Amino acid sequence: MIVVMEPESTQAQVDAAVKKVGELGLRANVIVGTERTVIAVVGEEREHAKEVLEVCEGVATVMPILAPYKMASREVRPEPTTVSCGSFAAGGSQIGVIAGPCSVESEEQIIASARAVKAAGATALRGGAFKPRTSPYSFQGLKETGLKMLAAAREETGLAIVTEVVSTEDVELVAKYSDVLQVGARNMQNYRLLEAVGGVDRPVLLKRGPSATMDEFLLAAEYILNGGNQRVMLCERGIRTFEAHTRFTLPLASVPYLHRKTHLPVIVDPSHGTGHTYLVTDMAAASVAAGADGLIIEVHPDPQNAASDGYQSLDFAAFALLMEKCRKVACALDRKLGCDPS
Amino acid sequence: MIVVMEPESTQAQVDAAVKKVGELGLRANVIVGTERTVIAVVGEEREHAKEVLEVCEGVATVMPILAPYKMASREVRPEPTTVSCGSFAAGGSQIGVIAGPCSVESEEQIIASARAVKAAGATALRGGAFKPRTSPYSFQGLKETGLKMLAAAREETGLAIVTEVVSTEDVELVAKYSDVLQVGARNMQNYRLLEAVGGVDRPVLLKRGPSATMDEFLLAAEYILNGGNQRVMLCERGIRTFEAHTRFTLPLASVPYLHRKTHLPVIVDPSHGTGHTYLVTDMAAASVAAGADGLIIEVHPDPQNAASDGYQSLDFAAFALLMEKCRKVACALDRKLGCDPS
Amino acid sequence: MIVVMEPESTQAQVDAAVKKVGELGLRANVIVGTERTVIAVVGEEREHAKEVLEVCEGVATVMPILAPYKMASREVRPEPTTVSCGSFAAGGSQIGVIAGPCSVESEEQIIASARAVKAAGATALRGGAFKPRTSPYSFQGLKETGLKMLAAAREETGLAIVTEVVSTEDVELVAKYSDVLQVGARNMQNYRLLEAVGGVDRPVLLKRGPSATMDEFLLAAEYILNGGNQRVMLCERGIRTFEAHTRFTLPLASVPYLHRKTHLPVIVDPSHGTGHTYLVTDMAAASVAAGADGLIIEVHPDPQNAASDGYQSLDFAAFALLMEKCRKVACALDRKLGCDPS
Amino acid sequence: MIVVMEPESTQAQVDAAVKKVGELGLRANVIVGTERTVIAVVGEEREHAKEVLEVCEGVATVMPILAPYKMASREVRPEPTTVSCGSFAAGGSQIGVIAGPCSVESEEQIIASARAVKAAGATALRGGAFKPRTSPYSFQGLKETGLKMLAAAREETGLAIVTEVVSTEDVELVAKYSDVLQVGARNMQNYRLLEAVGGVDRPVLLKRGPSATMDEFLLAAEYILNGGNQRVMLCERGIRTFEAHTRFTLPLASVPYLHRKTHLPVIVDPSHGTGHTYLVTDMAAASVAAGADGLIIEVHPDPQNAASDGYQSLDFAAFALLMEKCRKVACALDRKLGCDPS
Repeated sequence: MIVVMEPESTQAQVDAAVKKVGELGLRANVIVGTERTVIAVVGEEREHAKEVLEVCEGVATVMPILAPYKMASREVRPEPTTVSCGSFAAGGSQIGVIAGPCSVESEEQIIASARAVKAAGATALRGGAFKPRTSPYSFQGLKETGLKMLAAAREETGLAIVTEVVSTEDVELVAKYSDVLQVGARNMQNYRLLEAVGGVDRPVLLKRGPSATMDEFLLAAEYILNGGNQRVMLCERGIRTFEAHTRFTLPLASVPYLHRKTHLPVIVDPSHGTGHTYLVTDMAAASVAAGADGLIIEVHPDPQNAASDGYQSLDFAAFALLMEKCRKVACALDRKLGCDPS
Repeated sequence: MIVVMEPESTQAQVDAAVKKVGELGLRANVIVGTERTVIAVVGEEREHAKEVLEVCEGVATVMPILAPYKMASREVRPEPTTVSCGSFAAGGSQIGVIAGPCSVESEEQIIASARAVKAAGATALRGGAFKPRTSPYSFQGLKETGLKMLAAAREETGLAIVTEVVSTEDVELVAKYSDVLQVGARNMQNYRLLEAVGGVDRPVLLKRGPSATMDEFLLAAEYILNGGNQRVMLCERGIRTFEAHTRFTLPLASVPYLHRKTHLPVIVDPSHGTGHTYLVTDMAAASVAAGADGLIIEVHPDPQNAASDGYQSLDFAAFALLMEKCRKVACALDRKLGCDPS
Repeated sequence: MIVVMEPESTQAQVDAAVKKVGELGLRANVIVGTERTVIAVVGEEREHAKEVLEVCEGVATVMPILAPYKMASREVRPEPTTVSCGSFAAGGSQIGVIAGPCSVESEEQIIASARAVKAAGATALRGGAFKPRTSPYSFQGLKETGLKMLAAAREETGLAIVTEVVSTEDVELVAKYSDVLQVGARNMQNYRLLEAVGGVDRPVLLKRGPSATMDEFLLAAEYILNGGNQRVMLCERGIRTFEAHTRFTLPLASVPYLHRKTHLPVIVDPSHGTGHTYLVTDMAAASVAAGADGLIIEVHPDPQNAASDGYQSLDFAAFALLMEKCRKVACALDRKLGCDPS
Repeated sequence: MIVVMEPESTQAQVDAAVKKVGELGLRANVIVGTERTVIAVVGEEREHAKEVLEVCEGVATVMPILAPYKMASREVRPEPTTVSCGSFAAGGSQIGVIAGPCSVESEEQIIASARAVKAAGATALRGGAFKPRTSPYSFQGLKETGLKMLAAAREETGLAIVTEVVSTEDVELVAKYSDVLQVGARNMQNYRLLEAVGGVDRPVLLKRGPSATMDEFLLAAEYILNGGNQRVMLCERGIRTFEAHTRFTLPLASVPYLHRKTHLPVIVDPSHGTGHTYLVTDMAAASVAAGADGLIIEVHPDPQNAASDGYQSLDFAAFALLMEKCRKVACALDRKLGCDPS
């Protein structure tokens, strides 16, 4: 941590800051520059130390040097983690493919979806039973009934089930029926929920909040890891920027950035990341080329009649083409995408 | 709602879209332009109708005309709402002032803060007992013990208590000790929590998420109003932009914008909105000039030793100067800021 | 400047970086931390030194400590600069008011505008003769004819003339007719133009680019100051963010931030900063409360028939009300807004 | 164009707006809704019409339906345009590869770079002779001397030369020595410059401004096309967002979006788009997978001693690996990347 003093700071202020560093159990090195004095602080840094030093008189700013997360860090675990669950694996040479409708609408719909995405090579089925919706007047999901339909689809196809949990009260219920718990973008900083899924024996797919920095994203993962659950997958699903021609801006440089900073696998969601069907396939291929460990794609038997997110859902034929394109890219880069299509 | 067809759309696609409009219980007016056909849709629009039409073949885009929120809308209730609670009032000619520390740290700290902010003219006391923190390793609040200290401070000073609730499980507990429930920015789209505070007999201070659009913000308020709780205050606390010299960007045009769209009072938080002590007072004065119905300010007896947010907290003397400055502006514009200082 | 080494950097890499520091004429202090080594670099830093060190092997990042601008800096000139020009002054206790139409359309229009804004208390007249327009098919301004009309309006009212220059070739021509040269937001990093206005004996109003950081903004000013022209005014006119309910987001914390970093006066443009007539007055008042040294406001005799920017222009009556409101706020804060209304 | 009236608008206001539509030579269709009246306007729309209607009394908002650009539009020219120049081609099945140093520093440096990038398969050489720099104290380029060195490198290797022009005065000079004129991101809305390059017989590489919307980007291209120059290439080089771990955010969905809207080829710049050497290769591969028609990559013989942009430049070996990776992806998707490596 580097403590930068104001140009007009006094010697007494420097001394006081150095004293404070000592009280925090850290060591101070004072460097007098031509225009400013800085104090280099040595020792295991804590978030709290930064906050304390930042408000000392005469201090202009405090620049942290170490990452604020630990268990998620590549410095702690240099080898990449592969998260597996039945037929699904993400990490290493495997690119996991999660596909299915935004919402579970009926048993027919979800089973048809499961069969189609499996046939095209997907290794997990997505489908929302508890839906967080921007408007209180929108369809909120079938809840436990939907979970049962998902379980039926697994029964039928063997696909791992990925579904969202929106509240601590539902964690147990959702874990009962599903294989992977998804924490949605709106809940990325719902710390109680992160703690709850941190205590469950299920992999977690953690979606990035649309205005979360990378440190905030990794600290959210840290909550889960800290709770004892090591099977965390990070999902880039787009950020909010001034761009209005896409619903969100999908910043694929997140993939190689995260691979450098963390051992956790990185999944990309080009459906939410673009918000338009016609952009999904190209961005899925780009995600694979960028090094993604997985894809999550919205697929619906009949997007024109979907209960939600039809504008960004692919039909079965379009999904098969997406898989074909992505498989070519994966193959060219020596990775394996999903399972072999039937 | 305006449905814009693609330039190359066929007559059959236009007919199909018109048919779909009818099935939704709405009326269609087809207008053939020189380059495009548009369908003007008349009737009470629903979010769902937009989603359905958006995915019809040949449709380029759907432009909503009505606001997606209803109960929050000024069209439904043209007169501004004043939210009151004991000594505190926000709306009309009254500018409510909520002040106090980020976290409740001890009874001495919170009572000293309460006395000082009241003496300077504040009408409510803030203080966090349940703290949502970015890092799992940061101080998480004193929980119920903190709530009891807040209640003691109310006992002592008569100030209304404003404190955050982070989880549905805690709503009842927090409501027992406090006067106004705060929903934090990270939880603005935690719909279960919004529903829960919508069912409680306490005013709610709803903070804007740092990447929430105005429609999303007002739809979050709609969840609370729809639950039966009409005493909602909207709080602008800054958005995330590329600017790095402030922690968030405080967009004060939100104040007159919201006043035009909604009857709910608008509070501004210049502490989180700037993230630096030295910017708070000027931005508080600017908020008042922009027409804010209230301010929420972080004040701490000793910011240099605060458990959290010291970098953006004012000490008692600085807060008294802030109040003096804001009072001058409020007075010049015929509004009343907080209560008279003692 | 702080050079942070990678955790796995070798001693040889640290030595090489230290050697490079020496070659740059700077002094290195090596601090070995528990997890990382950092090198604190002392001496007059240059942008180039940062770039060189950043790419040394084993270096993770380089954190500058000094501001990259010099002549604009408050460290170099602690007292605020007042920029004056005839009746117009911005800085110290004076708040300059520049008002007038987006484009000069006719002599009648500009003279009527000049009279009206002067009567309401403005101290300078704005009006575009060279218009940078997003579309090649939009009205591009009356050019020299427009400049002559502006000069006629000055003749008539005595107001200082503020008008935009968009190209180095036009600098001499525009300077011949006008009192203050405006560099528009689109040209904030048109360095040739900055150099050209840096060599002219006219104050310059430099508008912030909509995605410029504060350092980039101040470095653009530095180009002008470095050219020998000390009369630079900075103009905050809004930034581009995800917010779509306003054309730009007006971040008023720029005002106190800039006052701390630079001695140059800060003008605010709430017309472009909001893009909607109904938001301009409240944001003008907020700008004054935030400490602005000047306002620039679009005013048109008949906004409904303006050649450009009608949606954000005030008519004469609305401008008079704006001035009345802003004068109250200025007065409450012991500043003088424009001149006395007639 | 759809004119949306305010809910409280009067019949007289609707009539006045309809009359105005007629005066603009357009046709009005009035649709009375349950809560609002809208006027659908038919005829060839112009930007000006929107501005005029927007400020009519009682009008809430005006929603354009047609794109504001014409010559750049895919509606006007449905087939994709290929831009060729000697060995370089971008569009159709060809992916052009422009590589070389940020700045031309010496004849040795630029010739060595040219040889190396050609050997790896690049089809054009980049190198800056006129450098727009954020700070007036940074290296500004070798100017004409640099242009001569570029010409010498072409002589040596046969590569097409791509170099930036920053000012109208230099257009002729730069065109004399180079094959493709680059308009930089800072100058995307320097309309005089766009007009100047629109009148020259050289392809233009137009870089997107970091806060430009897609409409603004395409309207900038329209200035060049409108000047008579049809050989325009669009270059996505990253936008400014809240993300700080990359210098800019590279939004690759621009590629398929632009392919749908315009016939012009789309080049991607992953060097500026990420700002870090270690991210460039993965993002180059992702660009190819997203459908890019070209890449522009910063390559330097010795990035650690580059005069500028060393932090985002690849050395020769790294560039060869990038090409190998991108060639695999291009090949898998039936496209040809650059020329065959030697």
